Amino acid sequence: MQALWLSDGALRLTDVPTPQPAAGDARVRVRCAGVCGTDLELVKGYYPYDGIPGHEFVGEVDAAPDAPQWVGRRVVGEINIACAACPTCLAGRRTHCERRSVLGLKGRHGAFAEFLTLPLTNLHVVPDELPDDVAVFTEPAAAAMHVLEQVLVGPAERAVVVGCGRLGLLCAQALRSTGCSLLVVGRSEGGRARARALGLDACTEASVPRRQADVVLECSGEHAGFELARALVRPRGTLVLKSTYHGRPEIDMSALVVDELTLVGSRCGRFAPALVALADGTLAVRELIEARYPLHQATQAFEHASRPGVLKVLVEPRA
Amino acid sequence: MQALWLSDGALRLTDVPTPQPAAGDARVRVRCAGVCGTDLELVKGYYPYDGIPGHEFVGEVDAAPDAPQWVGRRVVGEINIACAACPTCLAGRRTHCERRSVLGLKGRHGAFAEFLTLPLTNLHVVPDELPDDVAVFTEPAAAAMHVLEQVLVGPAERAVVVGCGRLGLLCAQALRSTGCSLLVVGRSEGGRARARALGLDACTEASVPRRQADVVLECSGEHAGFELARALVRPRGTLVLKSTYHGRPEIDMSALVVDELTLVGSRCGRFAPALVALADGTLAVRELIEARYPLHQATQAFEHASRPGVLKVLVEPRA
Repeated sequence: MQALWLSDGALRLTDVPTPQPAAGDARVRVRCAGVCGTDLELVKGYYPYDGIPGHEFVGEVDAAPDAPQWVGRRVVGEINIACAACPTCLAGRRTHCERRSVLGLKGRHGAFAEFLTLPLTNLHVVPDELPDDVAVFTEPAAAAMHVLEQVLVGPAERAVVVGCGRLGLLCAQALRSTGCSLLVVGRSEGGRARARALGLDACTEASVPRRQADVVLECSGEHAGFELARALVRPRGTLVLKSTYHGRPEIDMSALVVDELTLVGSRCGRFAPALVALADGTLAVRELIEARYPLHQATQAFEHASRPGVLKVLVEPRA
Repeated sequence: MQALWLSDGALRLTDVPTPQPAAGDARVRVRCAGVCGTDLELVKGYYPYDGIPGHEFVGEVDAAPDAPQWVGRRVVGEINIACAACPTCLAGRRTHCERRSVLGLKGRHGAFAEFLTLPLTNLHVVPDELPDDVAVFTEPAAAAMHVLEQVLVGPAERAVVVGCGRLGLLCAQALRSTGCSLLVVGRSEGGRARARALGLDACTEASVPRRQADVVLECSGEHAGFELARALVRPRGTLVLKSTYHGRPEIDMSALVVDELTLVGSRCGRFAPALVALADGTLAVRELIEARYPLHQATQAFEHASRPGVLKVLVEPRA
């Protein structure tokens, strides 16, 4: 099959053997895959990975030796493949499994290919009313909705999202669904315009009030974004770190203690509420699609996605 | 009156006018004051302060123009003097008042003197059964008990306290009262022995299991202590930062996100539960007293308190 291969920070299109599903796995024919910020970090070499990248996808089950009734179903898939046996799994925190592999990120080939395999237990059937180019957002939508399971936000809270990119605009829409007072801060006029097109209140760094937000989400993936988020949160407020970024920034720990801030790291979420949020319009995602490429142009798709201010770039193997 | 004066990082004993209580204030004759780690940081110049240090005390009301019934009462006092009018005060977060002064730390002379003044609203009457050398621990005891109002800890949680110093041993006793499984990690054999003398389980850095604690309290005041605490907390666990320290350590933010940790800054607590905890034996504090000095030897008291491994040094003006 055709696949995009990452090795030593270089992407190339190649032919590899079509994967055979192991016991308990399904083989999925990829219909659509999304390029994520983490994929771009892989290419920059921030995490070691050698193989097929891609963890946001929608596809169709092509083979499932243990469960033929799955064949033909349109699915999305949770990306952490857990052992189900370590103490962390047994405690119910399977996304933190100590022996996990992660689709397209660690020990399991990903979605920029004609086929991928995943355990059946990772799959969720996509409702018929969700088109592929909406369902492909399930994984980042789950990450955005996950914040609402970590921090209690409601109509009484003042929230700010730092960053008008792919992740920021999803998280902002998730937060909006709580009825909180919400501002989105973006550096570029283009980003702010996109936020406004989604009905969000967007403003510049200079115009957002300091030390007043109850909850601030850092979605910029930049150290300057963290510093801004830190400046916006009120004493005893909560700062949610949603994006990973390279490096080890210096943090004024004493200031965190004096202001009694809470920092919350936030990563993957559950797919079930994400599928609901995509279906009921809580999360508008088609507005985030920037471009579509066929698989044989996947390297161009990555190049496009890495340009500043670009939102979601999709790769469609069959296009 | 006699007072200890800090100026440009130098301590000297001096004579200053006895303070006159303003409207709403009481003048308190200090019976006993404790040297805190923050006082030692002031002397090192980590925070700018020019005046009389000291914020842990027990004393007797000597004058209270608006409320003569307070005269003669033995009291402890909350250290943040709030404006009661700013949005933060009106929201109920008076310890974070935007215009606050802080006893012995910012804009209000402190307790290493014969007298101090504080608003009557800051004072708490000390129960008769609490001797001075127990009541003087009310402020650090409140800071320790405060953790239990920020993080839900109970018998199901595995907790670790990093640091066997003044603060660590108070916080460990506070945590123990929840019935959690608890380990105290100390670098020095002396610190661990003191923990054991309080009935706590103490161990070395090397023998405490990694990535397993639900809650870790960083009480060492050192960057290495933060790194250790970080290594001990499990994915999705909580790391409470209890001590301030100098500098801006580099933090691997991406690791916080990947492990979905929660960091909680923790500072001052309420005095009422602290007085209860001191009275009912939840917090044993006399075991933490290292030495006592009269006020005219307060500089020696600071020198003693700054030696490694030394616990609480008290200053007793009338001794």
